[in-house]
Amino acid sequence: MRAPERSVELTQVAEWQDGEVRPLQDQLAAEEPLEVRIGDTPLTVTMRTPGHDLELAAGFLLTEGIVQSPDQIAGMHAVAAENGTKSNVVRVELKDAPFDVSELKRNFIAASSCGICGKASIDATRQRGLRQPDTGFRVDPEILCGMTEALRSEQEVFSRTGGLHAAALFDAGGRLIVLREDIGRHNAVDKIVGWAFLEKTLPLSRYVMLVSGRGGFEIVQKALAAGIPVLASVSAPSSLAVKLARELGLTLVGFLRGRRFVVYSGEFRCLPVSRSA
Amino acid sequence: MRAPERSVELTQVAEWQDGEVRPLQDQLAAEEPLEVRIGDTPLTVTMRTPGHDLELAAGFLLTEGIVQSPDQIAGMHAVAAENGTKSNVVRVELKDAPFDVSELKRNFIAASSCGICGKASIDATRQRGLRQPDTGFRVDPEILCGMTEALRSEQEVFSRTGGLHAAALFDAGGRLIVLREDIGRHNAVDKIVGWAFLEKTLPLSRYVMLVSGRGGFEIVQKALAAGIPVLASVSAPSSLAVKLARELGLTLVGFLRGRRFVVYSGEFRCLPVSRSA
Repeated sequence: MRAPERSVELTQVAEWQDGEVRPLQDQLAAEEPLEVRIGDTPLTVTMRTPGHDLELAAGFLLTEGIVQSPDQIAGMHAVAAENGTKSNVVRVELKDAPFDVSELKRNFIAASSCGICGKASIDATRQRGLRQPDTGFRVDPEILCGMTEALRSEQEVFSRTGGLHAAALFDAGGRLIVLREDIGRHNAVDKIVGWAFLEKTLPLSRYVMLVSGRGGFEIVQKALAAGIPVLASVSAPSSLAVKLARELGLTLVGFLRGRRFVVYSGEFRCLPVSRSA
Repeated sequence: MRAPERSVELTQVAEWQDGEVRPLQDQLAAEEPLEVRIGDTPLTVTMRTPGHDLELAAGFLLTEGIVQSPDQIAGMHAVAAENGTKSNVVRVELKDAPFDVSELKRNFIAASSCGICGKASIDATRQRGLRQPDTGFRVDPEILCGMTEALRSEQEVFSRTGGLHAAALFDAGGRLIVLREDIGRHNAVDKIVGWAFLEKTLPLSRYVMLVSGRGGFEIVQKALAAGIPVLASVSAPSSLAVKLARELGLTLVGFLRGRRFVVYSGEFRCLPVSRSA
């Protein structure tokens, strides 16, 4: 998978090693702000790695509950920059216009400021209509174990810069369907969901999503919004991520490395019934 | 350094290893929302690891430019929760009341939505009055190299949960002054800055800050707001982090591991003059 050119920038740096200094050409993971507009009204600005911007915008709207259904998005395009070469603005048109964007922004702020305890945060996700993902989906432990290596070998920008998060979608057979990289883990997840939106394959009820690094509350919420039944991460989940996964019936896997993983929620989708405690 | 008890939660999980399943008691890094209020008015909600909440609130206000000077904060306290046991709300009183919080929030949103290109983001930090940190501060490369090991050995919650970011402050002699852990790297940095506020040691012009993981734009901005001259990270910085560090004269070090590191900006503070290319 070839990463978009704008996702890497070259720069001259100095390397110190064992007392010796030498100049070095380094590849940096690109970070730039992206503004998402609904019609003419700015909705949000997020720092992201350029590339797959339409996916990011669509995924953000869907996973943050700003739109409840893919059908509500009528169209999207990158707004041309003044110099004509690249753009950091995506304009989204929603159906059923005129749409009250100020109301939308209020809801958005309310959703992200969803209370002062973990329980209130979980209740807010229920109020958004997030439900238990497909209970018929299963994935074999041996197949799960193969996904980390597949992710690593496809992380092109990471291998060049050492500085990116990744999210990837696998089917139950362990086939890598799509991978996205970004300086923000949540952006990588949004890009995956936005990809599915553009491919018209939402909800993602027959897939495993694997993320690099940790699995926090926000990532679990985004997976649920996309209907993903199994979320796996290379590192540890947070307490609130586990609570939300358990309450809403998502399978949450952590520390997926080599031939070992830990199941925090929804064992039935990934552990043999007879063997699970 | 003993971490606050609320920063870890116990839970029962299932471990799969080489085809065998066994129950396991796991320690999770705690994640809960914290609401920061200015007087009675909610300003923001952030997902964080409980503990050092006053530091987090103060650091957030200072590093995000919501207040320009520590003198503007008249007082802070944790608002008691209904069950009386723990709180997820910090109330901050500002001097020079009555204070227009709606104006404050507008500025805050404007600051985080600071334009649609990296240059505009950097310009916005200038408009906030961020300046070049102390040009007289120096740190020896050998001393820098010792900091990663010190950070690792003191990361108590990380070692128990595998799920936390850390930020730590060192003096030029390599002594660890303070370390904070959080599920959010930016929160760990805010807790350090808030600690300095409570200790009345701002600006932090004679210290190195080391962060686990990557160094992005946001972290560089926060370091500059606290007057920190040297920011080091264990992993890679982003392109915009490097640009901001170069424009404002912060020393930015990446890939600080073992006896090697890479200097992206401000070499004069950490490389021998005669040797640097």
